[in-house]
Amino acid sequence: MLMNPNKDTQLCMSLSGRPGNFGLRFHNHLYEQLGLNFYYKAFSSQDLPGAVAGIRALGIRGCGVSMPFKEACIALVDELDASAAAIASINTIVNTNGHLKAYNTDYIAIAQLLKSHAVPQASSFALRGSGGMAKAVASALRDGGYRNGLILARNEHAGRALADSLGYRWQAELGEERPQMLINVTPIGMAGGSEAEQLAFPAEVIEGAQTVFDVVAIPSETPLIVQARAAGKQVITGLEVIAIQALEQFVLYTGVRPSEAQFQQAVAFARA
Amino acid sequence: MLMNPNKDTQLCMSLSGRPGNFGLRFHNHLYEQLGLNFYYKAFSSQDLPGAVAGIRALGIRGCGVSMPFKEACIALVDELDASAAAIASINTIVNTNGHLKAYNTDYIAIAQLLKSHAVPQASSFALRGSGGMAKAVASALRDGGYRNGLILARNEHAGRALADSLGYRWQAELGEERPQMLINVTPIGMAGGSEAEQLAFPAEVIEGAQTVFDVVAIPSETPLIVQARAAGKQVITGLEVIAIQALEQFVLYTGVRPSEAQFQQAVAFARA
Repeated sequence: MLMNPNKDTQLCMSLSGRPGNFGLRFHNHLYEQLGLNFYYKAFSSQDLPGAVAGIRALGIRGCGVSMPFKEACIALVDELDASAAAIASINTIVNTNGHLKAYNTDYIAIAQLLKSHAVPQASSFALRGSGGMAKAVASALRDGGYRNGLILARNEHAGRALADSLGYRWQAELGEERPQMLINVTPIGMAGGSEAEQLAFPAEVIEGAQTVFDVVAIPSETPLIVQARAAGKQVITGLEVIAIQALEQFVLYTGVRPSEAQFQQAVAFARA
Repeated sequence: MLMNPNKDTQLCMSLSGRPGNFGLRFHNHLYEQLGLNFYYKAFSSQDLPGAVAGIRALGIRGCGVSMPFKEACIALVDELDASAAAIASINTIVNTNGHLKAYNTDYIAIAQLLKSHAVPQASSFALRGSGGMAKAVASALRDGGYRNGLILARNEHAGRALADSLGYRWQAELGEERPQMLINVTPIGMAGGSEAEQLAFPAEVIEGAQTVFDVVAIPSETPLIVQARAAGKQVITGLEVIAIQALEQFVLYTGVRPSEAQFQQAVAFARA
């Protein structure tokens, strides 16, 4: 339908500080494959209230929300889904006739990944990070029954607050502990960042783990993931997170769930 | 480029009470033909200030403004082009880094059509109508040097105000006058309206004229135009107005002027 838009075409969009291509390629590819009369556009903005006013006034069907808007958006919507309410962080707005309901499909994606990778609930874990995404990951772990957790964060205030809210411990550094699951929710290993070449956990800690989970998606083969694969560990990548969270957004916006083959093809297209 | 949108794709849009397909088909076709990384989306809204806030906040490059927003929009933009200032009615917003400048490309299109059809300046004319579009047409006539004009409007207040502001006469009806140019700027003859089958001027008045100009575009072959063609008169149609005003919007948004052949092809595509 992209080639033949008409007055009934519905718009979905993303709002982020630094728009990328993954989401718009993923959604637009599936619209075309499934013959849906939608178009997806990536936006940036310096004016979040104005942007949300525009979503309402123009009847934009859905909006993916990324950094730095995930928390500030909460005051601007009408309703929070359980996936967003518990963690006070949203990444998705669905507009139904002017009523804005917010979701957190990162939370949903992480919960799905812990299940599909069959990570044992009894696993001890260390999660590095204390921002909005760390809150989503830690909450999905807590709600998934993972009780033996450690939040690693140099920011003691944010780290303690996150740990305390979910019944986990906080430490600035790992020390001598060797958790069974390592989770990176910081920009360490992210392309273009100052720590792009760094390992989020030291090699000997990786060696002692069973599962390594990195939410960094660009690249999805971070130094941490590369090292973990080399050491024969189970890995869960940021690409899996952004793909599944985008899929759940797609379902919320369109009401249509693509087949697994269509989903995988859209991920491959979106990465190309 | 429609098939391969990316994060740098620019959005243009229209805002109207009842969106149609002409504008979006015209603009999107030319984007594709000229390889421009733009997408055009038609919107409706119940909330004009919210919609304009969205244009600013999301960096939407251009917006075509139709009924019923052409006058209310003025208070919401930063600058009026001469084409809009004189008539206090806009149909185009160009957003340059958050600065909104409004134009009236209807005015520009009508001025071009009077020239390209070589209608003599000495022609007497009767213009039926007193709304925003009538203001644009009458102003283009005045600025084009047409001095012998009569505004026909059942609404005496609006009719007199328009006539007085431009140095024309006002009458409720034509009476025995037989102007050389007849111009319809009312919904008479418009598809779907209560007067769709009616003639905006009686047959004997058409017979006495040299030029008949109808701004109704849907259909462009209104009863008035059909009658005028049958009587061998020079005609100017609403299709010419919407096509040229859309072309001028396209140039304002993209900075690119299509060739005459590309323009005609886009008009044909947009009507199909």
